[in-house]
Amino acid sequence: MDDEFRYEHDLLGDLPVPRYAYFGIHTLRAVHNFPITGTRISAHRDLVNGLAAVKQAAALANRDLGLLEADKAEAIVTACEEIRSGKLHDQFVVDVMQGGAGTSTNMNANEVIANRALELLGHHRGDYHHLHPLDDVNAGQSTNDAYPTAVKVALQASTHRLQQAMATLRQAFRAKADEFADVVKTGRTQLQDAVPMTLGQEFGAYAVMLAEDEQRLAEASALIREINLGGTAIGTGLNSHPRYAALVCAHLGAITGEPLSTAADLVEATQDAGAFVQLSGVLKRIAVKLSKTCNDLRLLSSGPRAGLGEINLPAVQAGSSIMPGKVNPVIPEVVNQIAFKAIGNDITITMAAEAGQLQLNAFEPVIAHCLFESIGQLEAGCLTLADRCVKGITANREHLRAVVHNTIGIVTALTPVIGYAKASVAAQEALDRSLPVADVVLAQDLLTADELQRVLRPETLAGVNDREAHAHATD
Amino acid sequence: MDDEFRYEHDLLGDLPVPRYAYFGIHTLRAVHNFPITGTRISAHRDLVNGLAAVKQAAALANRDLGLLEADKAEAIVTACEEIRSGKLHDQFVVDVMQGGAGTSTNMNANEVIANRALELLGHHRGDYHHLHPLDDVNAGQSTNDAYPTAVKVALQASTHRLQQAMATLRQAFRAKADEFADVVKTGRTQLQDAVPMTLGQEFGAYAVMLAEDEQRLAEASALIREINLGGTAIGTGLNSHPRYAALVCAHLGAITGEPLSTAADLVEATQDAGAFVQLSGVLKRIAVKLSKTCNDLRLLSSGPRAGLGEINLPAVQAGSSIMPGKVNPVIPEVVNQIAFKAIGNDITITMAAEAGQLQLNAFEPVIAHCLFESIGQLEAGCLTLADRCVKGITANREHLRAVVHNTIGIVTALTPVIGYAKASVAAQEALDRSLPVADVVLAQDLLTADELQRVLRPETLAGVNDREAHAHATD
Amino acid sequence: MDDEFRYEHDLLGDLPVPRYAYFGIHTLRAVHNFPITGTRISAHRDLVNGLAAVKQAAALANRDLGLLEADKAEAIVTACEEIRSGKLHDQFVVDVMQGGAGTSTNMNANEVIANRALELLGHHRGDYHHLHPLDDVNAGQSTNDAYPTAVKVALQASTHRLQQAMATLRQAFRAKADEFADVVKTGRTQLQDAVPMTLGQEFGAYAVMLAEDEQRLAEASALIREINLGGTAIGTGLNSHPRYAALVCAHLGAITGEPLSTAADLVEATQDAGAFVQLSGVLKRIAVKLSKTCNDLRLLSSGPRAGLGEINLPAVQAGSSIMPGKVNPVIPEVVNQIAFKAIGNDITITMAAEAGQLQLNAFEPVIAHCLFESIGQLEAGCLTLADRCVKGITANREHLRAVVHNTIGIVTALTPVIGYAKASVAAQEALDRSLPVADVVLAQDLLTADELQRVLRPETLAGVNDREAHAHATD
Amino acid sequence: MDDEFRYEHDLLGDLPVPRYAYFGIHTLRAVHNFPITGTRISAHRDLVNGLAAVKQAAALANRDLGLLEADKAEAIVTACEEIRSGKLHDQFVVDVMQGGAGTSTNMNANEVIANRALELLGHHRGDYHHLHPLDDVNAGQSTNDAYPTAVKVALQASTHRLQQAMATLRQAFRAKADEFADVVKTGRTQLQDAVPMTLGQEFGAYAVMLAEDEQRLAEASALIREINLGGTAIGTGLNSHPRYAALVCAHLGAITGEPLSTAADLVEATQDAGAFVQLSGVLKRIAVKLSKTCNDLRLLSSGPRAGLGEINLPAVQAGSSIMPGKVNPVIPEVVNQIAFKAIGNDITITMAAEAGQLQLNAFEPVIAHCLFESIGQLEAGCLTLADRCVKGITANREHLRAVVHNTIGIVTALTPVIGYAKASVAAQEALDRSLPVADVVLAQDLLTADELQRVLRPETLAGVNDREAHAHATD
Repeated sequence: MDDEFRYEHDLLGDLPVPRYAYFGIHTLRAVHNFPITGTRISAHRDLVNGLAAVKQAAALANRDLGLLEADKAEAIVTACEEIRSGKLHDQFVVDVMQGGAGTSTNMNANEVIANRALELLGHHRGDYHHLHPLDDVNAGQSTNDAYPTAVKVALQASTHRLQQAMATLRQAFRAKADEFADVVKTGRTQLQDAVPMTLGQEFGAYAVMLAEDEQRLAEASALIREINLGGTAIGTGLNSHPRYAALVCAHLGAITGEPLSTAADLVEATQDAGAFVQLSGVLKRIAVKLSKTCNDLRLLSSGPRAGLGEINLPAVQAGSSIMPGKVNPVIPEVVNQIAFKAIGNDITITMAAEAGQLQLNAFEPVIAHCLFESIGQLEAGCLTLADRCVKGITANREHLRAVVHNTIGIVTALTPVIGYAKASVAAQEALDRSLPVADVVLAQDLLTADELQRVLRPETLAGVNDREAHAHATD
Repeated sequence: MDDEFRYEHDLLGDLPVPRYAYFGIHTLRAVHNFPITGTRISAHRDLVNGLAAVKQAAALANRDLGLLEADKAEAIVTACEEIRSGKLHDQFVVDVMQGGAGTSTNMNANEVIANRALELLGHHRGDYHHLHPLDDVNAGQSTNDAYPTAVKVALQASTHRLQQAMATLRQAFRAKADEFADVVKTGRTQLQDAVPMTLGQEFGAYAVMLAEDEQRLAEASALIREINLGGTAIGTGLNSHPRYAALVCAHLGAITGEPLSTAADLVEATQDAGAFVQLSGVLKRIAVKLSKTCNDLRLLSSGPRAGLGEINLPAVQAGSSIMPGKVNPVIPEVVNQIAFKAIGNDITITMAAEAGQLQLNAFEPVIAHCLFESIGQLEAGCLTLADRCVKGITANREHLRAVVHNTIGIVTALTPVIGYAKASVAAQEALDRSLPVADVVLAQDLLTADELQRVLRPETLAGVNDREAHAHATD
Repeated sequence: MDDEFRYEHDLLGDLPVPRYAYFGIHTLRAVHNFPITGTRISAHRDLVNGLAAVKQAAALANRDLGLLEADKAEAIVTACEEIRSGKLHDQFVVDVMQGGAGTSTNMNANEVIANRALELLGHHRGDYHHLHPLDDVNAGQSTNDAYPTAVKVALQASTHRLQQAMATLRQAFRAKADEFADVVKTGRTQLQDAVPMTLGQEFGAYAVMLAEDEQRLAEASALIREINLGGTAIGTGLNSHPRYAALVCAHLGAITGEPLSTAADLVEATQDAGAFVQLSGVLKRIAVKLSKTCNDLRLLSSGPRAGLGEINLPAVQAGSSIMPGKVNPVIPEVVNQIAFKAIGNDITITMAAEAGQLQLNAFEPVIAHCLFESIGQLEAGCLTLADRCVKGITANREHLRAVVHNTIGIVTALTPVIGYAKASVAAQEALDRSLPVADVVLAQDLLTADELQRVLRPETLAGVNDREAHAHATD
Repeated sequence: MDDEFRYEHDLLGDLPVPRYAYFGIHTLRAVHNFPITGTRISAHRDLVNGLAAVKQAAALANRDLGLLEADKAEAIVTACEEIRSGKLHDQFVVDVMQGGAGTSTNMNANEVIANRALELLGHHRGDYHHLHPLDDVNAGQSTNDAYPTAVKVALQASTHRLQQAMATLRQAFRAKADEFADVVKTGRTQLQDAVPMTLGQEFGAYAVMLAEDEQRLAEASALIREINLGGTAIGTGLNSHPRYAALVCAHLGAITGEPLSTAADLVEATQDAGAFVQLSGVLKRIAVKLSKTCNDLRLLSSGPRAGLGEINLPAVQAGSSIMPGKVNPVIPEVVNQIAFKAIGNDITITMAAEAGQLQLNAFEPVIAHCLFESIGQLEAGCLTLADRCVKGITANREHLRAVVHNTIGIVTALTPVIGYAKASVAAQEALDRSLPVADVVLAQDLLTADELQRVLRPETLAGVNDREAHAHATD
């Protein structure tokens, strides 16, 4: 029935748009053109909010400059605030994979905001002569400055949440580091027994790694607070008022609460995807560390009887459809996979950035999609790892103690006393004859029992309560 | 209200399961454990169908061996066929990103099939003493053979569709190659003018590239027709009947219509992700070629007035929110991005495959997810490129002809006659003095006008209707 | 002193060339232009030989066609044979990283061969009017067909050697598989104890993996036996005689002993890097498997006292500068790194292939360099791993036996008898109370001692000498 | 002859060492164990110098603490200074690809320095009872702190040189930006004609990109000034004096002139490769930008007659072996390839970092090798691009001016006046009827000739000398 549609027009002709729709003809063209993933941009909530924030800031700046009537500006602002409060997200229907440097996403935002503003002004959707998606909502903008700015604003929100998730995980590791501060164990290098340490030191290292990565993420996130709004099509600022760039940046900063700034060279800023590559590189770094940490957790909890058996991960589900009672490290495993995905996404982002040509990078949509995907999954991974794994880890203290007393590596402590060569011989003999190192050292008269007792104590070797003591002794 | 739930039990205790649900407690644990992407395995329809096919084949094999009662087998088979016809897909609710080597996906399938079979037998969902998800539906199987086999069966369906999409695209290029067979143009190497060719040759090359890639895909797809059903947990076949592996393979082949075979070494087959890496490598190859082709299309259609302007891509949407009348190559652009994603996914798959340890690769879920994602997007990309771009391409014949007569590269044809050194001098002079090569050659008395006319004819140089003629002449 | 140089000329002017040099001005320009890595193409011996083979074949084909005088052809052939026997390789001085699609490498070959041929004919180096690097040595060729063909010929030699190295490694694993055929151990999935298997099965799987990869490598290598000689600049065959392509292919096949063929579409073949991407994908697959295998070897040999301690790798050097007696798995470690490099090189090759534009891929030099690098290192890695590690591996048989009797996983064998649910309870109790599974099963009256003895025997569970027996029993 | 060798001993037995050699048995074992690439660590000069700096600092710290006799310390210091002045580099003979977390490289350094120090003290090489490679040169150290610290020190030197090369390239672009400040041209987005800009703006953007990347490199380089000397084997500091870490850091800072600091958590610092991953990520970012820039240069210089033909790159060598007079963009092409290699190396580094286990990353050698390779090649690429390409670029001013007046994109300037919809119609008509936009605007009475003249002036549109004027006008 004809009633169900309104007709809109663009350079290709007319198209019926569902009457209920807030989006318009440009969005519809894009929906037809990009039937790729089935995932719509509404899946990236931060991006939808970011678009609304940009449009809101632009309306205010244009109003201030006398380029947009006050009532139109007010209607646009209200529409944007509604979107930012979570409404109308279902109207952002373009596929996340799309050609056109974000044009379709920008058009989608322009149309939804225009039609909602029209409603607020008492008009029908589609009556664009009252308020136009392009001439009014998009005034002073191009996709090429509005879209990347919206992505950057969105990434602020996304990375803030990731940072919080990382902090949660860091605190979980730190709590375990404190809990295990006195658990002496065998340190390993290259999977071979090395010298003693504590399980607390081991878990403490994971906390420190995360703390460093949080800092790197904060730095990378700060780099994308530099925006190119005002550059319009290619950064020359064509069609934007000379005071517009400063004004819109100030409004957008106020709206988002982020300390945004305008790039000094807008031509460069419009074509450059470097800050996205940098952010992705840091996400990859985080992924690498998380994966390494999960590898360790899986290794340390291997067993229960034919593995290292040093720690126990909490059971969260049955591990096998055939082996009863088997419990698997499924939480670290899913985090490994999240990491592999983020590393793969980094390559996608790298190639997309490299493929930019001349005054614009046409491939920003896939860059944005991959960044949101990686950040979201890493956030989920950190929280899941903290809550469903790390917090419930327990240590097999007796087993750890038994093993550390039996390792060869403690011979290392003898080298300052007897030299590398003699210590090697003792180590070899202990290994060949399946004896404790201490026995061999005594049998070979390398040290007295007293000296031995003092030197080879694992707690001492691990440096527990020791370095301070030593420090005092040598003062 | 208690009525809304039934209670199920596993090694971790009891859990209320929504009464309407066909899935059970193991699925529910996984849903709680993996809140990662929001995308459920139901998004990969081929995988759900593949799981149902495997369970159906196993039920038949177990029935044949007298290990499963006929009525249970029949109910399981019916449930599986319903799923394969598209029903109950919404019950496959586990996240695509999950720990556990596919256990949760396998459990999800076991539970849905068991509960639907129970219904068919007149029992309530959850009354597993009549028919059990593990003891009956999963009988003779482990996740470690059932899941990768389901993935392989699913990939047959997915790759078949991709091959068809590639064939559609190939035919579109071939049709254009025929249409442009007589359009002479300047060939380019390293973006510099080289020697003449036809636009038909150029488009024909894209068709040939695709034909080769279709063949490579068929080969890679054939490699994953080797399955490990019957290997159970680690490939030793523990708990499976000696005749089971052969029987279940035959049933699965009959169900799917694919010429499946059982791997000779099931221990190897259970831990090896090599065939997936190979398939991903071929997808990457396809992505590389598609991307290169789209780069060319964008380059050849650059303009309309400051670019190469050799061909026109059909306009499918407005290109800019600020520049009226601008039409952009959005279809090739989205295919470029699909390619970058497939290349990134290849790295994810590579890392996941490398991370497999000992008797199993725990990271098959992300491998499967990435393969389905890449294949699906490449399929969509090929169809979209064919239908919305290639089929509508037109050539700017006059412009092409004008340019080719004016290029320096035709001097190449003189080298067999006058030598490389003299030809270089002529080329340089034509360039320096902005003259046609022919004028310089005549002015320098290098050839007569007649000779020149014959040698420098672009059609001749491009080899149009020429090689045969030449061949005759030299007989 | 002027005597030390001869002067050569090109379109940029004159340049003094060292009188001793067989290379000429084009080579010298390239040496000046590309001071990138310090590694010269002479480092890739197969490539130098491949270039000589191509030039030799071209000279013979041109002679057959009457396009090259017999004495010139003979001199060129002799020069090429000298190079292929190992002489003059030091004259191939262009950097492996170079712009220009291989032009400089081709020029280097043309000049060295021309000057050596001049000598053989009794002329001075540089007297190109007697025999010219381009008009004679390069006759009928372009870099764009001669260079990739030389690379392909070279890759045949390189991949053959890699296949032999893989076979050596496979045989080493197979010998260990036989040696360890009766060593029962605990199989592991997801690093958790699973069900019993033999160490022979474990090592046998590595041999099977390699066998499959050898086959994939052979297939990928076969794909690059299709050459584009005769296509000249862009595949249209400009300046080559109609019968030349077939003739030169036949000569090159005879010279190299490889079953080469000419591509059906030379325009496509000239621009397409697909076969290189495919080969690189297979090298990546090999790398993934080797790395996984080395990860396993390092894991299984972890210890000596705080690790899995299942096998011992031969000691090949002191492991630590501080920990006496420590021996590390340095051979698997270097193979891991070789694998990571090959995987990184695959990305380089992928990007270079994707960056090809229109009628040529300008980035073939880095593709070739990476392929030769990866193949050479993988070959060295396989041989080193076989000779310095695998052949010397020993098993800790008693430890393995003790552990397998103690694992929980053997409970799996009970599920067909008592069901998954009861078996789960038994497993849990064994674990909680630190008891052997068998004790729990007996205490719970799940099986009689006799039944238990029969069902839970690790050898039986591992399928040693069992499947055949079982097969007979059920006939 | 026996005279030619001295015999040295380790835990594996005796080995003859060439009498002339400064290296010893541990080095020799490694040479035998790792016949992988043929490239020795001496190829990385900064690394050899870094090792010497670390050993020198350690000797001084140990002397200060009374743990090393003054004459030994002095001899070691002298030996190290000799190496840092370029001597004895040929004695660093271990392969760059090696297992063992750098142990062999560290051993190589210990032995060369010990033997040179022995000479300086008047002893024979190999008389280690006077001064021992491990007990004296390696005193207080482990490979696991000494090696990564040496790598970090080396990377300071390498990255400084890369920064200088980037600055050189940046200045070359900046000079061209100034030279081309008044050259108006057509800006392009998505390869389609957009709005006017200047060639100066275009080149200025490349300079700005580099400036940003220089800053990112400086930050990443600063992160690797945090060292773990004093952590010894696993970061617990076993066998090192409590005051050693601070002392050795101070000495190393003084020797290298870098503001080094000791990591707060040495356990974490010893196992963490995060700073290397970060640095590699920044190198990848630089590679992406350089590659994008080179893509642009190749595109803008395409032609000479069938391309964009906007700029001319200086000819540096003949471009083709078959096409006389052809000149190719070989310098940008080699930089593209350098970029692809750096991006591939980033994946290698990523995988190596992810593969670290527990207290150590055993794969640091390949990380170091790839970093030095990428940095060195990027440095060479920047210098080559600056000197052999950018500095000689010229603009085709007339052609640029002719084209920009003819483009459709100038219609954009009308949208604020006549609206997006009417401007679209005008653009379409100009395109369809092959007319200048201005003619259509006049014919449709959209603007008067005067208005048109003012609004559509390309210089105005490009913002040349305009934004200031405008700013004044609107004050």
